[in-house]
Amino acid sequence: MKVYLDNAATTAMDDRVIEAMLPFMKNHYGNPSSVHSHGREVRTAIERSRKKVAELLNASPSEIFFTSGGTEADNTALVCGIETHGIKHAITSPIEHHAVLHTLEVCAQKGNIQLHLLDVNEKGEIDLGQLEELLKTYPNALVSLMQANNEIGNLNDLNQIGQLAQANGAFFHSDTVQTMGHYVHDLKSLPIDALVAGGHKFHGPKGSGFLYVRKDKKIHPFIHGGAQERNMRGGTENVIGIIGIAKALEIAYEDMSGHEAHIKALKKHFIESIKASVPGVEFNGMSGDIDHSLYTVLNVSLPPSEANAGMLLFNLDLAGISASGGSACSSGATVGSHVLRALNHNPERDSVRFSFSRFNTIEEIDYTVEKLKELYAVEA
Amino acid sequence: MKVYLDNAATTAMDDRVIEAMLPFMKNHYGNPSSVHSHGREVRTAIERSRKKVAELLNASPSEIFFTSGGTEADNTALVCGIETHGIKHAITSPIEHHAVLHTLEVCAQKGNIQLHLLDVNEKGEIDLGQLEELLKTYPNALVSLMQANNEIGNLNDLNQIGQLAQANGAFFHSDTVQTMGHYVHDLKSLPIDALVAGGHKFHGPKGSGFLYVRKDKKIHPFIHGGAQERNMRGGTENVIGIIGIAKALEIAYEDMSGHEAHIKALKKHFIESIKASVPGVEFNGMSGDIDHSLYTVLNVSLPPSEANAGMLLFNLDLAGISASGGSACSSGATVGSHVLRALNHNPERDSVRFSFSRFNTIEEIDYTVEKLKELYAVEA
Repeated sequence: MKVYLDNAATTAMDDRVIEAMLPFMKNHYGNPSSVHSHGREVRTAIERSRKKVAELLNASPSEIFFTSGGTEADNTALVCGIETHGIKHAITSPIEHHAVLHTLEVCAQKGNIQLHLLDVNEKGEIDLGQLEELLKTYPNALVSLMQANNEIGNLNDLNQIGQLAQANGAFFHSDTVQTMGHYVHDLKSLPIDALVAGGHKFHGPKGSGFLYVRKDKKIHPFIHGGAQERNMRGGTENVIGIIGIAKALEIAYEDMSGHEAHIKALKKHFIESIKASVPGVEFNGMSGDIDHSLYTVLNVSLPPSEANAGMLLFNLDLAGISASGGSACSSGATVGSHVLRALNHNPERDSVRFSFSRFNTIEEIDYTVEKLKELYAVEA
Repeated sequence: MKVYLDNAATTAMDDRVIEAMLPFMKNHYGNPSSVHSHGREVRTAIERSRKKVAELLNASPSEIFFTSGGTEADNTALVCGIETHGIKHAITSPIEHHAVLHTLEVCAQKGNIQLHLLDVNEKGEIDLGQLEELLKTYPNALVSLMQANNEIGNLNDLNQIGQLAQANGAFFHSDTVQTMGHYVHDLKSLPIDALVAGGHKFHGPKGSGFLYVRKDKKIHPFIHGGAQERNMRGGTENVIGIIGIAKALEIAYEDMSGHEAHIKALKKHFIESIKASVPGVEFNGMSGDIDHSLYTVLNVSLPPSEANAGMLLFNLDLAGISASGGSACSSGATVGSHVLRALNHNPERDSVRFSFSRFNTIEEIDYTVEKLKELYAVEA
């Protein structure tokens, strides 16, 4: 049995997404910037995709910019947000994705900003009081806080953070890569200046993404060149990527609560079964709290075990189960998780992130828990 | 009849490229950074693609970095080349692509460099003597000169420029978007530090590209995030884009001289036929010189004509012929061509760029010239 439980790293493409992309591989190959018929039909498809994304998010098409993925979108929002608005202080947390952390660290190294990291407790929670204090000390700062942590599933309340940011003149960016397509985003009511998406996290293509920037917080372009994306991103558009991410988001919104219910049931079942099967199991961050965490992620902390120490992912892989040890985007890195480190996680316990999609089944969860039970029974 | 003669803007994908990409849309969806089997099979495919590209260009796989396209690759080479190597002067020409010109202009506006533009004559030719003088005045500069101009087909001798750059300690980057896949690049013998490719210019997918940076001229990353591309570009890889661009380059190299011979014959036939059909026709830049210009591009300057003034592209489009007025990437821009402006082109003459691929036929050229003849006969 092959079981894919690494959906926070990437998801399988939906067949309907592939179907939508194919005509733009085979027939409609014009450059969307060209004025002739070959170009116009592709331009129309791109702008229709932009309109669709904007409608789903209750934003304006002029606020949506297609990128090569969530990371480029994060870099654009942060680097160009800081430059355009003359920002001198940035506030973030040590458990952000590297697309945010490394980007802000480089801005700080260049002397463009001073970087302030919020404290996190051992559950990975930030303190909004500390955020408010920093915002008052450094007005007109940049705040970058993810909506959901990709490793431990902690959720931040964007509405609350956004109100604090707004009250203190801050530019508020959120890395929403893990929540886009999984939660509803209503950008007319949400007090946020920039958020991002990566298509491959919700059954769209890798190499596709978009950046939302609120109308009244416009920023300079990050990639310079032609006049594409309303002069906001040079370079011929990744047409199939744009068609694909828009279609994937459309499908995600068609039955989001249905998908959520299905996946939450899987996660609940996983939590209950593994508690019953592996004594001493714990859950990292908030991920074990079914009602207060990202429903797609469960980060399992297993009791110290000589047979599995450092070999857990390998043992699962041998059993046909794909899961992850660290972050979504560098799961292969041997340096360990900066997120679990920030939580002072006991290094003697092995941790594994299981992440689910609407394509997973109860049978796959049962199989996985059964294998974990076997692996940890060796010790008993 | 539908005739596509805008191949310098973008090309139709080769069916074999699509075939190579499809399995990575349908089946192999793992994240290449994941250590499990779903990830490893994709990682293997990416590294095989990198090795293939490196082999074709006689480079090392560690010198090839996949990007979202030629423009991102140009931005990376220029912005990060300047930063990494502490460069204070950049030398380029006024007829470079906007991916180079605008990027360097922004670097200059920020005060990071002083920008020096070479003169061009009315044929668009630069003066290597002037380049050498600037290089001696400003040692350790950055030189960015394209191998072939996308509008007027002028060719620069990369070998000669590279030797001058090398002798004066300069970092030499070339925008090779129009020549990659159309000419052989032997990077062991060519004295160049960075060059770029955009897959869609040689029958690969839009949104794919790569950057070559010579081993001993390493640069910092442009997009920060995960450890992808050997820490040189954060963000989950555009897997299908990478598979596609490598396959397209492989196909291009399989019979490059055959493709060149076919396309050159089309261009020669176009030149001869239109000269015989439209009195007063001229060719912009060097594009009319079959042996000393980019063989895929012919930029035709037509005599003043009231019936066609400002309407030529539209009239061609009505006849089913797709061609371009300006640059490849912003053919729709109404601001006119900065390249033709730099050549002091007579604004009363309409210009149109026809650009060819191996998929074009003699019949299509005959049809196009016939239509031009009709359009300009009105005046006679």
